[in-house]
Amino acid sequence: MKNHTEIKALVFDVFGTIVDWRSGVAREAQSFLNRHAPGLNAFDFADAWRREYSPSMEEVRSGRRPYVRLDVLNRENLVSVLTHYGIVDVPDPEIDELNLAWHRLDPWPDAVAALCSLKRKFIIAPLSNGNIRLMVDIAKRVGLPWDAILGAEVARAYKPSPQVYSETVDILGLAPPELCLVAAHNSDLAAARQLGLTTAFVARPTEHGPHQRTDLKAEAAWDFVVDDLNELAQQLGCAD
Amino acid sequence: MKNHTEIKALVFDVFGTIVDWRSGVAREAQSFLNRHAPGLNAFDFADAWRREYSPSMEEVRSGRRPYVRLDVLNRENLVSVLTHYGIVDVPDPEIDELNLAWHRLDPWPDAVAALCSLKRKFIIAPLSNGNIRLMVDIAKRVGLPWDAILGAEVARAYKPSPQVYSETVDILGLAPPELCLVAAHNSDLAAARQLGLTTAFVARPTEHGPHQRTDLKAEAAWDFVVDDLNELAQQLGCAD
Repeated sequence: MKNHTEIKALVFDVFGTIVDWRSGVAREAQSFLNRHAPGLNAFDFADAWRREYSPSMEEVRSGRRPYVRLDVLNRENLVSVLTHYGIVDVPDPEIDELNLAWHRLDPWPDAVAALCSLKRKFIIAPLSNGNIRLMVDIAKRVGLPWDAILGAEVARAYKPSPQVYSETVDILGLAPPELCLVAAHNSDLAAARQLGLTTAFVARPTEHGPHQRTDLKAEAAWDFVVDDLNELAQQLGCAD
Repeated sequence: MKNHTEIKALVFDVFGTIVDWRSGVAREAQSFLNRHAPGLNAFDFADAWRREYSPSMEEVRSGRRPYVRLDVLNRENLVSVLTHYGIVDVPDPEIDELNLAWHRLDPWPDAVAALCSLKRKFIIAPLSNGNIRLMVDIAKRVGLPWDAILGAEVARAYKPSPQVYSETVDILGLAPPELCLVAAHNSDLAAARQLGLTTAFVARPTEHGPHQRTDLKAEAAWDFVVDDLNELAQQLGCAD
């Protein structure tokens, strides 16, 4: 375990690390699917929508497309997925409403209490690919006590592009090791470490459902490796 | 009084509207001045430092200089003011420390409670020319319960440039009238109204000390005009 006395701020991946997007999207999509595609499993639908996430951001990361916020990408991806399933002629307001599923995700059970503890000692903020309004809506609905909303929209780039991490370090006025990224994804942590950030892996072995095969454990010697965020709070001297 | 049912979010000017910068800077500068310029009045020093604020931002607003955050401008202005007073040969760390005076400002007595009330019904965020870390430090020290930190650094421009207001409307996914700017400065509100935002004036008649002559009252028919933020919370249906 790394000496943590130099850490001044913690930033968090959100989708998968703080919130359970799969259960939330499935729950929010259920009534829509009941109306438009009664045979379709809501978890399969959530997984299909989520599969479009990385490729759509890659258009921006590669420079082929200027930065647009995730709400826009999510909506485009939703239309693709609906078309794929043969769900057509859905009125725009209904698509807009379903797109807000991502604004109504529930946190993992440990998240709110642990963030409240960590906030007493550190600056805490999301470092998500989600846009600011999306992050604010999630936080207000369930009480995530962020000090600021950082991430893709503030940096105008998508993780794991290096400028998202370096711009965040700069905004917070820190040296890179003073900023710790907390994430359930080894690739996110690897990108942060490249820029000199401190890294903390939290296991979320059911983010992708019961048959998840990726990110089941730390794949490098991250500075902290924990089973949940309360364990991280303890290791950082913030336990209640 | 305007019908307020369409307002979804409130953004606030901070220096002067939420915090009392003059008393705070004077208090923070006192021990420095005791060491380096014992005859100099700390309020006069605060006023002199503050007089450099608008001209330094004008360099950015005019396009003569790319956006740099307020912490940088404040430090440059501090060096100018020290030179003006003949205070020279001060070590850099001592200047850096004094520059943090702006991170340790106290709120006006009504601010924290009123913001807590308003937060239950609205998204609340600063829309300040202060940079993100500066806003976070002020908020954490005294408990300002912001949902996000918006403003100059997110928009990469300084108020009253129109893009600060329009970019904030866009980030929040709102129509302009759904966003209300709360400020103690008529010029800030005028710029916001140009972009279609709702406007609320709060009187802060001692922001510039006992002999203040500007912004003593609303100079246009702003949508809301109040004596403090608790009165605004009441008018917006958020009173305790």
